[in-house]
Amino acid sequence: MPVGTNAETTSTLAETARRDYRELVDAGLSFDLTRGKPSPEQLDLAAGLQELPGAGRPTAADGTDCRNYGGLQGLPEMRALFADFLQVPVEQLLAAGNSSLELMHDCLVHALLSVLPGAESRWAGQERIAFLCPVPGYDRHFSLCARFGIEMIPVAMTANGPDMSEVERLVAEDPAIKGIWCVPKYSNPDGTCYSDETVRRLAGMRTAAPDFRIFWDNAYAVHHLTDERVEIADLLAACAEAGNPDRAFVFGSTSKITWAGAGVAFFGSSPANRDWLLANNSKRSIGPDKVNQLRHVLFLEDADGVRAHMDRHRALLQPKFEAVLRIFDEELGGTGLAEWTSPKGGYFISLRVPDGCAKEVVRLAGEAGIALTPAGATHPHGVDPDDAVIRIAPSYPGRQELEQAIRGLTTCVRLAGYEKRLAG
Amino acid sequence: MPVGTNAETTSTLAETARRDYRELVDAGLSFDLTRGKPSPEQLDLAAGLQELPGAGRPTAADGTDCRNYGGLQGLPEMRALFADFLQVPVEQLLAAGNSSLELMHDCLVHALLSVLPGAESRWAGQERIAFLCPVPGYDRHFSLCARFGIEMIPVAMTANGPDMSEVERLVAEDPAIKGIWCVPKYSNPDGTCYSDETVRRLAGMRTAAPDFRIFWDNAYAVHHLTDERVEIADLLAACAEAGNPDRAFVFGSTSKITWAGAGVAFFGSSPANRDWLLANNSKRSIGPDKVNQLRHVLFLEDADGVRAHMDRHRALLQPKFEAVLRIFDEELGGTGLAEWTSPKGGYFISLRVPDGCAKEVVRLAGEAGIALTPAGATHPHGVDPDDAVIRIAPSYPGRQELEQAIRGLTTCVRLAGYEKRLAG
Repeated sequence: MPVGTNAETTSTLAETARRDYRELVDAGLSFDLTRGKPSPEQLDLAAGLQELPGAGRPTAADGTDCRNYGGLQGLPEMRALFADFLQVPVEQLLAAGNSSLELMHDCLVHALLSVLPGAESRWAGQERIAFLCPVPGYDRHFSLCARFGIEMIPVAMTANGPDMSEVERLVAEDPAIKGIWCVPKYSNPDGTCYSDETVRRLAGMRTAAPDFRIFWDNAYAVHHLTDERVEIADLLAACAEAGNPDRAFVFGSTSKITWAGAGVAFFGSSPANRDWLLANNSKRSIGPDKVNQLRHVLFLEDADGVRAHMDRHRALLQPKFEAVLRIFDEELGGTGLAEWTSPKGGYFISLRVPDGCAKEVVRLAGEAGIALTPAGATHPHGVDPDDAVIRIAPSYPGRQELEQAIRGLTTCVRLAGYEKRLAG
Repeated sequence: MPVGTNAETTSTLAETARRDYRELVDAGLSFDLTRGKPSPEQLDLAAGLQELPGAGRPTAADGTDCRNYGGLQGLPEMRALFADFLQVPVEQLLAAGNSSLELMHDCLVHALLSVLPGAESRWAGQERIAFLCPVPGYDRHFSLCARFGIEMIPVAMTANGPDMSEVERLVAEDPAIKGIWCVPKYSNPDGTCYSDETVRRLAGMRTAAPDFRIFWDNAYAVHHLTDERVEIADLLAACAEAGNPDRAFVFGSTSKITWAGAGVAFFGSSPANRDWLLANNSKRSIGPDKVNQLRHVLFLEDADGVRAHMDRHRALLQPKFEAVLRIFDEELGGTGLAEWTSPKGGYFISLRVPDGCAKEVVRLAGEAGIALTPAGATHPHGVDPDDAVIRIAPSYPGRQELEQAIRGLTTCVRLAGYEKRLAG
């Protein structure tokens, strides 16, 4: 076949994409890739929880009756089990309910309505409160800001975490900037791991706000997809060392270790912040569900138990991630239409399509029965200024469904991309 | 023995009380009657939870995988199980985490930071927010007000609930009064049940605040101690009928049905309030622990199951309450030193000692190793202006310990009471 002009080639490619897309629509698929949900098979890995704590009064190592009121900080053995993974000394770690998002929400509430250690006043009533939002990032962090009227200032992500020069410049000059959202390991959605240098600079930077907080959502601390098992630097220790001991709020959970809806969430910080949260929590609750915490300890047993369990997740997840990457390579490799991440852990692959095409790709996919996270969800207020980032969540569907959905998605990328080229 | 003067008699009685108190201190007791905690034997009644949900994927009736994210309103079958008991239509009921106190806290937070249906603005930033506090009442309600800077206006309790003439007068004239705390059945600590007339007047009264809310903490909805099984009027229905559909927030939980620390809490209200809470909760959480809700449904089965379970609680609690009342009668009857309630349900007996004596009684008991709820805890800011009310929580100790503790308490009442008479 003779090589035509570039326009002719694109025209041909677009025509093929149109035909493929019609076939895709005709296939009548119905797949959901919207959220980072574990698959039923992953949840089955924790089936051991279903008959725990088992017979006999559910009693903690210190004799606490887990069924009764009390124990605001959570079960010591549950905190001990995750202290190292979350890089928080056990006495500074809280084990709470089933959602770390709740803990983040409540930290914002308490900062708004009470006075944070180091703060001059509570945040409610201040004219302007702003958070730095590394983008692309996690939509639920942004929703929390939106819900409380907190201004969101986007900062670009790099291969080593947020653009630290920009972060340092902004926090140094603006006292209204009270925090930054971070997913430091296998970030949502790019899979980025913060470098030691990034952690050091976050801990040590000068902030105009005396009550600046790093919301360190270490959601994927043990969620490796390769043999590398990436380690990140210890933020709490770095903050203490830099003379900013109260700067970090660390969050984590077993939502993607045991059960997404019935796990255990964690908060870790300095002694002052721990006491502040406990004091506020003590008005709200008479203690978390300690039976569920005991159930988790009995099931996971110890750090090796957690690691072995995460290896079983990896065995289910890694082939799905590989399938997505293989199909992207087969269908989009060399087209110049897309770039994508190859994460070493976490729950997402980030797909970058030509500027101005992400919404169109998601729309096309939706009309073909493939539900994707809305384009823009990775940015504050749901607006990606480039309209280029699409978050792929490979975990939930079965292998075959996933492959069909991803192949369908690549058709949508080709269609939107070539149409744009033709139009441009 | 010749009858002496009144002064001599009191002197003799005081001397006897002093001697008895010295013996009490020498006995070196160590008992805790501070909180309304279920006993281990009561918690054992729910031992069936310990191996539930059992084998097989934990799946709701509608096919929902209880282990995964989602289901913000809670499991339909769990809501159906408690809808009638809490007098809330199932579609207007939420099943949540392990604590109704959390739900009350969060309703205050959302009212402070968002705008309630019917409100002109959010409460944060308003110069003054006040709540009516029927006294004696529940200390944790008052702590929530104190924590958020909400002014507390005490209103006297009567045999039928709060003094409604006073309530009506206050809410009609003061737009800063945004709410009232109510424990409508077997109230904490008096065991009062609100009359139908009280419910009707609460639902229908004119309030200066357009966003006035009744915080209806129906904590003891099924917690009967007699055959009477008291029923109260349906507040939600009464509010709707009176043209104030959004006035009531209903709370409840299984904390004193199954496990105090690992139960399920409920919120019920009008469709507008339900949607308001769900919208706010949707930013905070991806759903409650549905596995625990399923566990509860499998264990309690149906309304008859709940009733039968509560009968088993009654079999453990009623003898303890009877023992307290018998000892009060034996030791304090006819002394003119004390009055007490004989509740038909709930968790408390309220003991009224001579004005100015409650703190002294609690202090004396504490020094004799009998820990009681601090005097004043039944009033805002921990200040009982009469210094007369002591809350007795008979549920937790074993029968023999309880009897020893209560007998010791009566010694403290005699000592403080007769000393006061001598001094006066």
